Amino acid sequence: MNILVTLNSNYIKPLKVMLTSLFLNNPQESFAIYLMHTTLKERELTDLDIFIRHEGNRLYDLYVDAHSLKNAPVHFHYSKEMYYRLLAFKFLPQNLDRILYLDPDILVLNSIKSLYEMDLQEYLYAAAGESTAYIREFNKLRLKPFEIEEYYNSGVLLMNLELQRQTIREEDIYAFIENNPLKLIMPDQDVLNALYAQKIKSLDRKIYNYDARRYLYYKVLTDGAWNMDNVLRKTVFLHFCGKKKPWQESYNGKFHALYKHYEKMALG
Amino acid sequence: MNILVTLNSNYIKPLKVMLTSLFLNNPQESFAIYLMHTTLKERELTDLDIFIRHEGNRLYDLYVDAHSLKNAPVHFHYSKEMYYRLLAFKFLPQNLDRILYLDPDILVLNSIKSLYEMDLQEYLYAAAGESTAYIREFNKLRLKPFEIEEYYNSGVLLMNLELQRQTIREEDIYAFIENNPLKLIMPDQDVLNALYAQKIKSLDRKIYNYDARRYLYYKVLTDGAWNMDNVLRKTVFLHFCGKKKPWQESYNGKFHALYKHYEKMALG
Repeated sequence: MNILVTLNSNYIKPLKVMLTSLFLNNPQESFAIYLMHTTLKERELTDLDIFIRHEGNRLYDLYVDAHSLKNAPVHFHYSKEMYYRLLAFKFLPQNLDRILYLDPDILVLNSIKSLYEMDLQEYLYAAAGESTAYIREFNKLRLKPFEIEEYYNSGVLLMNLELQRQTIREEDIYAFIENNPLKLIMPDQDVLNALYAQKIKSLDRKIYNYDARRYLYYKVLTDGAWNMDNVLRKTVFLHFCGKKKPWQESYNGKFHALYKHYEKMALG
Repeated sequence: MNILVTLNSNYIKPLKVMLTSLFLNNPQESFAIYLMHTTLKERELTDLDIFIRHEGNRLYDLYVDAHSLKNAPVHFHYSKEMYYRLLAFKFLPQNLDRILYLDPDILVLNSIKSLYEMDLQEYLYAAAGESTAYIREFNKLRLKPFEIEEYYNSGVLLMNLELQRQTIREEDIYAFIENNPLKLIMPDQDVLNALYAQKIKSLDRKIYNYDARRYLYYKVLTDGAWNMDNVLRKTVFLHFCGKKKPWQESYNGKFHALYKHYEKMALG
């Protein structure tokens, strides 16, 4: 299975935790981890290569140099890295038909097989909507005049690379950014939604992009069905959204101990 | 390593979770699990035997029949099972020199080797004091006129069986119960403390009997040192003390997700 990650040095430890949870809970699979980056050092890549290289898993280094996205507009509060996810299809081997992008602030709690093998039909992506109705509505309003039915979180993205190569034009993305510089709060996620929301297959967010801050919300919304038992047994991606991260000293969330458990497994 | 557990049918699932965490976090060891009981059914014992029987681990059935403790005084709010822990040395094979008793509402997070191999010197037991100073003082007062320096929690007890056979007299325990029937709130734990507190080697409670309700308490007490990182890396026994248990639907504690993780590993 192909997995895409993009990061800088600050996210190496969380990446290892995420990958450890992915490997442990998908013991039947082997993974090709594609790492898009610009600033990682040689020793960091070697370290990651050793970490990943066992039981058939491999790391593929997708170094993006400063000239690669030379026409991309850049603003003071976001950098070229924001384009990595949107334009990954240009950098990945042309024979890959699909890849699963995962943020490094995720724990993988169950098998990804059903998701990975899903029929993407004519969709460019599969993704889950943001956790709460309030956030989805706020963001839909914010992106007016773009009419979107759903506001998706870009932390888990199954990519239909074959279709993306045929239909996504780099220039459209740049034009959108040039024309809407002030609206972009979460730049790549906003572009994804504004330009492609109609071409995103909607996933069940409590399974494929469970916001770790919203335990009670999901539980109430399902009349109690999505209790802790079901999170552990059925949720696939537990996403530590927001500014407070479980590897920070001050963190105090519902899944703190579980994160630290995987962190110990990953970092020893 | 010898492990002692005592339980009825209601605690089979928690026992499996506890044992799973013990086995997973002590992969180098093999275990002899001694199970003292009176009411378990044949199929429950077979099921437990299959569960435990792998990688060198074995279950030993220590059935205690109704006549075994015929002189034991029994009161309306506690039964003969309260004596199992105190008199285990009489039922266990006489060639065992030590055994570690564990409550089933525990997760074992790290290696038990240092504890199990500790020098017990002239102590009958090793145990940890109750979590908070308030609870320890309250119980010490409650057990007056018995003068005890510490009030120990009996959920984790390393037993010096050799010395117990020489010095503990069944009659002393019965006499104590006959003479102090109203004082016993937690009957076996009270007896243990009133009669043997001076002969208990004191363990660090945040390592060997961490009360899962007291995350902030331990953290503040250690000036922040015993944070979640250290719980996962250094605490050996995480004890779900109190009435609310993590396998109950209404539970909502700091270690809920971690418990459910092990429960999934244990029960599938």
